[in-house]
Amino acid sequence: MINPVFQEDTICAISTAPGVGGIAVIRVSGSEAIAICEKIFTPVKKRKLIVTQETHTLSYGTISKNGETIDDVLLALFHTPHSYTGEDTIEISCHGSIYIQQQIVQLLIEKGCRLAQPGEFTQRAFLNGKMDLSQAEAVADLIASSSAATHKLALNQMKGGFSRELDLLRERLLDFAALIELELDFSEEDVEFADRTNLKKLATEIQKIIQQLADSFSVGNAIKNGIPVAIIGETNAGKSTLLNLLLREDKAIVSDIHGTTRDVIEDTINIGGATFRFIDTAGIRDTTDIIESLGIERTFQKIAQAEIVLWVVDATSSIESVILLAKQILPLTSDKTLLILFNKSDKIGELERVDRNSLFEDMKPLFISAKEKLNTDELQKRLIDAAHLPEISANDVIVTNLRHYEALSKADEAIRRVIDGMENGISADFLAQDIRECMHYLAEITGKISANEILHTIFRRFCIGK
Amino acid sequence: MINPVFQEDTICAISTAPGVGGIAVIRVSGSEAIAICEKIFTPVKKRKLIVTQETHTLSYGTISKNGETIDDVLLALFHTPHSYTGEDTIEISCHGSIYIQQQIVQLLIEKGCRLAQPGEFTQRAFLNGKMDLSQAEAVADLIASSSAATHKLALNQMKGGFSRELDLLRERLLDFAALIELELDFSEEDVEFADRTNLKKLATEIQKIIQQLADSFSVGNAIKNGIPVAIIGETNAGKSTLLNLLLREDKAIVSDIHGTTRDVIEDTINIGGATFRFIDTAGIRDTTDIIESLGIERTFQKIAQAEIVLWVVDATSSIESVILLAKQILPLTSDKTLLILFNKSDKIGELERVDRNSLFEDMKPLFISAKEKLNTDELQKRLIDAAHLPEISANDVIVTNLRHYEALSKADEAIRRVIDGMENGISADFLAQDIRECMHYLAEITGKISANEILHTIFRRFCIGK
Repeated sequence: MINPVFQEDTICAISTAPGVGGIAVIRVSGSEAIAICEKIFTPVKKRKLIVTQETHTLSYGTISKNGETIDDVLLALFHTPHSYTGEDTIEISCHGSIYIQQQIVQLLIEKGCRLAQPGEFTQRAFLNGKMDLSQAEAVADLIASSSAATHKLALNQMKGGFSRELDLLRERLLDFAALIELELDFSEEDVEFADRTNLKKLATEIQKIIQQLADSFSVGNAIKNGIPVAIIGETNAGKSTLLNLLLREDKAIVSDIHGTTRDVIEDTINIGGATFRFIDTAGIRDTTDIIESLGIERTFQKIAQAEIVLWVVDATSSIESVILLAKQILPLTSDKTLLILFNKSDKIGELERVDRNSLFEDMKPLFISAKEKLNTDELQKRLIDAAHLPEISANDVIVTNLRHYEALSKADEAIRRVIDGMENGISADFLAQDIRECMHYLAEITGKISANEILHTIFRRFCIGK
Repeated sequence: MINPVFQEDTICAISTAPGVGGIAVIRVSGSEAIAICEKIFTPVKKRKLIVTQETHTLSYGTISKNGETIDDVLLALFHTPHSYTGEDTIEISCHGSIYIQQQIVQLLIEKGCRLAQPGEFTQRAFLNGKMDLSQAEAVADLIASSSAATHKLALNQMKGGFSRELDLLRERLLDFAALIELELDFSEEDVEFADRTNLKKLATEIQKIIQQLADSFSVGNAIKNGIPVAIIGETNAGKSTLLNLLLREDKAIVSDIHGTTRDVIEDTINIGGATFRFIDTAGIRDTTDIIESLGIERTFQKIAQAEIVLWVVDATSSIESVILLAKQILPLTSDKTLLILFNKSDKIGELERVDRNSLFEDMKPLFISAKEKLNTDELQKRLIDAAHLPEISANDVIVTNLRHYEALSKADEAIRRVIDGMENGISADFLAQDIRECMHYLAEITGKISANEILHTIFRRFCIGK
């Protein structure tokens, strides 16, 4: 670990979720953290200064402003470098009233702290070498994780799984570069070292790993942002009832053991560990989503963005009108997973059911009633099957971050140029340049190379207090 | 302090505000707290058991379930009796993802914890003699405090200010009872000890203190629940614009330094440290609050509940219609503070203004424009003046709790019966009975005497995790 570089100022922020709670935690980090807290905190028992306490200890005491108590608090002390940021850090646990939280933050600012930017504590942890950039990004993903799969991926990345993979790649690229550069040293003699066949094999192996990582982004993205699902169908087919049913059942599971409300992630549900994201369903609930003429732009766009299409058919409609709709819909969904749902199927008889089933026999249409909650379990099963998500084990490295995917894609291009170059007998110095470029892009991921604006973009999406 | 009585089970709950945050804290308390956490926590550095660590220390480590990591956490240890509850307590600081919070709570439950009831940690603190009942109630008030005044009152009560006052009262009552009972011992001899004049003086002093405390409830209640304000006026006078303006300006102050949203306390604002509660303003925003015929029930009820009445008059209305309204409104507000607001006053000329002003000259009507934000600072000043709240110093004992007020009222009745009894020459044994009753009601406040259902009612209003 490199020595912590103290940033110029000491920062503070409320680190727990906003709102009223039993307790709240305010974090203070920087070279003046202890000195500033010393000014406002009086321990109840031992009248010792904070600075004389050992690291990783808790003191009970009082925070006061101009002699008036603001709150009784617990103060947790972390000496540099044994803290999250690597700097001297103090965490103040106070009563979770918003008024108290604000008063303490205001007092800290008065005494010399600056309010932290979103993610600034983690940014300092990165700058102080406590974690690399991909690990820092994983912290934000971990906090945002709302399913077993997103949690697992973020945790693995935070623990350095992805970083280790990149380090291995880097080592292989260094070996490769060393061989090429050896050739370069003797270039005047116009020697081609070893045979290039071996070199090419090595480059191809490296390229494969990079490509695998880049390819994993499609899975990673589906896990992280949800598998895009479009719900389409005529007006009054029951789309909104179905959507609300799916959303409600998910919410019920969540609120079960928690006793609290969660941030509603609009129109995203977890079923069996997979996240499904419903595309543009605002219209469905306004019931302005008229699909009478199926050629309309909107339905077309929805299908284009989706991986899974739920076509809700009013089972009581005439066979003719269903056939008419099918002629429009089926061609649009050829590369999608299409689930055909005959809704309101409690209102049709057995004969009508057979008729409708035979229309789409090979596609196994599902007969449901969103209103009566008939057969919706089966619908959930079909959704999980359609998701096609691979089992993820704790050690799988799967790219979930667009920035990483883009860097990998560029590294992939560079290493491909190396392979092409060798095939076309390009000289070693050009090859070396592409190898360096490949390594550069990989280094961007872990932050070995990082521009200020990249850091800014990354940490801006954190919550304040982390 | 009495020895902690271990409750039969170990409880756990998320103690920080619900939702996503940088970090979250899960609290575990009870005789099995350490043993249960031992099963799920692995320290990163020293491979020591939690139980061997000293109290008030922090360990960094991993929480796992069946070998799979759930999160890296900080674990704070408090040995009995040096904890909030008085029991062995562990506070787990984890990443503030809802998924992680739920996973850890589920795991704790799996390993033998029970999910805590609202306020159960504080209830245990009370049962273990860490605080009396009025102090425990103050914890909930402190967490709910949203202004300087509510915060100050709750903190003082939590620190035992009210309890000390009650203890003093109890001592005086004991002295008094001793004298009466001495008389009782000699009752066969039909002696009246000392002269009853002195006894009566003592009783009167006690009664005065009890009454003062009970009387302070009207101030305490206004501070805690806000001063009730009614906004009345014709349709389209601008009531909703004014209300929204007042609410918005307050919200802006709050969100300024916090960077977070707060739980919206519907239609309550803080101005200059005082809380104002707007009565039944739902109608105003629906604009269904038709006041054309001022005799209607609803406006009448609103005024009856209010201390302050804001009458919003459309300044562009004719003088005649204003006079007509005034005839209906003024008689209803004779015992209220009435603020007359001529809204839309930017749309009338100087002459019209003089006319309208002269209608209510002695009441100093205010000419504002809610839409153009004209003169609304002055309105805020008028509201503060109308609030009539006394300056509260940190040591003032002010009753804010209805339960305490009711107990004090009953104690007051009992001590008054003692005084009356002495005046009417009632015998000492009857007097002694009333004194005991008086002491009983005071003891109920601090929980020296408490029924289970009272405890249940009190702690039910806490948030979970405290």
